[in-house]
Amino acid sequence: MSIVVVGTLGYDTVETGIERVEGVVGGSASFFAIAARFFSPVSIVTALGSDFRADHQRIFAERGIDMRAVVTRDGPSFRWHGRYHEDFARRETVSLSFNAFAGFHPDLLPDQRRADYVFLANVSPDLQNHVIDQLSSPRMVGVDTMDHWIGDSRAELIDTLKRIDLLVLNESEARMLSGEHHLVKAGRALMRFGPKIVMIKRGEHGVIQMTADSMYIAPAFPVEAVVDPTGAGDAFAGAVMGYLARVGRTDEPALRIAAVYGNIMGSFTVERFSLDRIADLSWEEIDRRYREFIEMTDTNQARWNSQ
Amino acid sequence: MSIVVVGTLGYDTVETGIERVEGVVGGSASFFAIAARFFSPVSIVTALGSDFRADHQRIFAERGIDMRAVVTRDGPSFRWHGRYHEDFARRETVSLSFNAFAGFHPDLLPDQRRADYVFLANVSPDLQNHVIDQLSSPRMVGVDTMDHWIGDSRAELIDTLKRIDLLVLNESEARMLSGEHHLVKAGRALMRFGPKIVMIKRGEHGVIQMTADSMYIAPAFPVEAVVDPTGAGDAFAGAVMGYLARVGRTDEPALRIAAVYGNIMGSFTVERFSLDRIADLSWEEIDRRYREFIEMTDTNQARWNSQ
Repeated sequence: MSIVVVGTLGYDTVETGIERVEGVVGGSASFFAIAARFFSPVSIVTALGSDFRADHQRIFAERGIDMRAVVTRDGPSFRWHGRYHEDFARRETVSLSFNAFAGFHPDLLPDQRRADYVFLANVSPDLQNHVIDQLSSPRMVGVDTMDHWIGDSRAELIDTLKRIDLLVLNESEARMLSGEHHLVKAGRALMRFGPKIVMIKRGEHGVIQMTADSMYIAPAFPVEAVVDPTGAGDAFAGAVMGYLARVGRTDEPALRIAAVYGNIMGSFTVERFSLDRIADLSWEEIDRRYREFIEMTDTNQARWNSQ
Repeated sequence: MSIVVVGTLGYDTVETGIERVEGVVGGSASFFAIAARFFSPVSIVTALGSDFRADHQRIFAERGIDMRAVVTRDGPSFRWHGRYHEDFARRETVSLSFNAFAGFHPDLLPDQRRADYVFLANVSPDLQNHVIDQLSSPRMVGVDTMDHWIGDSRAELIDTLKRIDLLVLNESEARMLSGEHHLVKAGRALMRFGPKIVMIKRGEHGVIQMTADSMYIAPAFPVEAVVDPTGAGDAFAGAVMGYLARVGRTDEPALRIAAVYGNIMGSFTVERFSLDRIADLSWEEIDRRYREFIEMTDTNQARWNSQ
């Protein structure tokens, strides 16, 4: 089944302490869509500025990503400038300009309104609610958010959370939104806002996934040389939604596999800047790393053999 | 099979930012032995000062721990004073006095020399080598170390590593000793020094375990309220050696279960100061948490059902 993602597409400037890249393709919808398309068809809903290059649009179109709902508006595209510190442990937003994306209130296409899987990437709760209003009967609505919205649009965000199935966010956002420091308590508090599933991304420390009656904790795939963590969380969400849409299930075993694929796509993303690692990844590479991950984290092989 | 542990037994002063306790029972051998005895008989080799209270000695004796090789020397016992910062992310040693343990060069008892499982807790490489010299044919010699020895006795420590099977250390020690920042590279570099198995303890982020041809990564059990992390690493090692001695195996599936029991005993240790949580733990509590951990980290339940 296909997925609709609403999010930004634009240009990033990234400083990592070792390198600096300027004007590379970024935005939450870009990483999400490139990761999700390995599993399911994806349709992007976004607004580009007039400076977004045709060859950059082709990165998506040539990989089968549906761009019918991508509009181009006057002026520059969405831009983010970030700087990493302390070996990627801390990220600072130097500047953030929504530009062409500001005030974007899309009307979904008729087939998008009937979509089963919809992801509202890191955009304003107002826009998230505007999209949810247009959906006829989605099987799963997923949402990501960030400190900016948690701080400035908390009430609207909490309204959004009542209407969704899956909340994906990082550990500092989980703490900020829930008011709980311990991540298990934070996850439980977040579920009380509405979502049936909460996935807390912990970067190099993996993921905690909670539902009403289960908890799954997975470490991250151990990447030896991190170049740039930007987009790893969006790629995580893309693989999660992509896998769930592919199998058409939202039960606990499927959610666990989805989280592992999320980890795996995140692990590839951080190995290069921008989409450089994940744009041309092969399914064989993803599958190999998935199997390696299962082998590395499987305690139970032991249980069968020795207890 | 029984285990011999050589390490400190004395008194700790711990400041956590919330609380301060003074003169509580501490030392690497104490946490190790109390954790290991749930799995296998344990014999402690240490030197106490004349101030070590009889009721504190009874904590060990009453739990079946063999104290025949514990000597008492004039003067005060081993003392450590530590302070935790930033929500337990960083630990500072305020003071460390070996006191009665300084210069301790024990002669093992005849049955201890024939021990199959021997653990040389966080003591000088010189003492570690002195003990290894006395062993007749151990099946597994495990070693822990710390920044103090890595910095001041590096050559002697590297000699020790040639003679052992299992190295247990935390992530900053792994980086310092190997010169590699990335923990997988650090683990491989440490194995080149000699040990067949390297377990890198990552506190609330779990453990990475490596052998020549395998890697196992496990998250930590998510403890909701950490009171004091002191001794968690020693309890981890105690449970690991205890489990391996109980099953009499050192193959990969057994090592994975051992690491999980290590995680579990560490998770109990941090819930109270000193031995307060683990001294009177029941096997049922350990077993329940082990099962919870397997349930929380098991991706493969998914594999059977859905792939």
